[in-house]
Amino acid sequence: MEDNRLRNQVQFILEVDNLKNVIRRSYLIDAHRKENSAEHSWHVALMVLVFAEYADQPLNSARVIKLLLVHDIVETDAGDTYCYDSNATHNKSEREQKAAQRLFGLLPPDQASRLQELWIEFEARITPESKFARALDCLMPLLHNYYTKGKSWKEHGITADQVIDHTKVIGDISRPLWDFARSTIDDAVAKGYLGKHRALSNPAP
Amino acid sequence: MEDNRLRNQVQFILEVDNLKNVIRRSYLIDAHRKENSAEHSWHVALMVLVFAEYADQPLNSARVIKLLLVHDIVETDAGDTYCYDSNATHNKSEREQKAAQRLFGLLPPDQASRLQELWIEFEARITPESKFARALDCLMPLLHNYYTKGKSWKEHGITADQVIDHTKVIGDISRPLWDFARSTIDDAVAKGYLGKHRALSNPAP
Repeated sequence: MEDNRLRNQVQFILEVDNLKNVIRRSYLIDAHRKENSAEHSWHVALMVLVFAEYADQPLNSARVIKLLLVHDIVETDAGDTYCYDSNATHNKSEREQKAAQRLFGLLPPDQASRLQELWIEFEARITPESKFARALDCLMPLLHNYYTKGKSWKEHGITADQVIDHTKVIGDISRPLWDFARSTIDDAVAKGYLGKHRALSNPAP
Repeated sequence: MEDNRLRNQVQFILEVDNLKNVIRRSYLIDAHRKENSAEHSWHVALMVLVFAEYADQPLNSARVIKLLLVHDIVETDAGDTYCYDSNATHNKSEREQKAAQRLFGLLPPDQASRLQELWIEFEARITPESKFARALDCLMPLLHNYYTKGKSWKEHGITADQVIDHTKVIGDISRPLWDFARSTIDDAVAKGYLGKHRALSNPAP
């Protein structure tokens, strides 16, 4: 390989292979193992092809897909941060910034900027595309939890008020998907997959 | 969920979750396990963002990504067919057609057609987008094999002439990527990752 540009691009592709080793909290629908961030990224990008019609405003679905293809790449270095783990989320931004610098920095500068911009757009959640990408990224674990009878929710003692608080961003970009998410959460509570309110571990005297 | 359309779309997304259980022959770059078709689909779709510039003719890279997001979905039912297994490839088409009918058929008819068309386009390899998608789909396992010192090639007794025969389609759409693939294959032979010619199991008398 004589070409430095191509060599650097290949190096990037090889490094992010490790996203296949980053394990999330959600279980596969058949519940036999937890999913990894690479296969999750495929699943949620595919979801765009099927659910784009539910966005409340016009959006560029190809860009939503691109955002989702890169949205978890920083986890290659920084690991997956569980959305309900407040200890881990406090330094998430710093860890992920550092990871983004290193990983996207493997690419030729023009592509490093372009891919990093996709990640920054996803994180900022200002454009309709990034809001919709985030909505699908929240909806997917809801499906995985519901269809595994709340397996991961139960393991981590997650309750409906936490799930609602985390997934309500779906409503910022898609009324129909938020209605669906809400009814799925209600149904999960009714079926006992999900507790209603967080138990007070340190009740006031 | 009152809405049949949404219910059918969710059912499709749940069913294809099983692509995460379809194991390919390639090992991860760290060689500790084989990869599955869902995480491979993410990896190769991401590759478009980095390698699209090497296409020999103008192409719609967003469409290449869409082709790659759906290209292995039929394996959810039909399993992965190893490209060097001539016993398995003979009825591959029939198995995959049946899988496509069932899986895409879970979707509302308009989306079923649209996604099935993506798969048919990928398989037909006539459009520049499908040729490029196929090129990346061939290049990726070459990288996985090379960087695991030919682990999967060795397990299956694969030789350079077979790899060249299988990957030469890269040259139909990208001269630079084919040059790179060729030099990677030569280097793999030089390093002993890959035998040069197939041993004749039934030599002529």
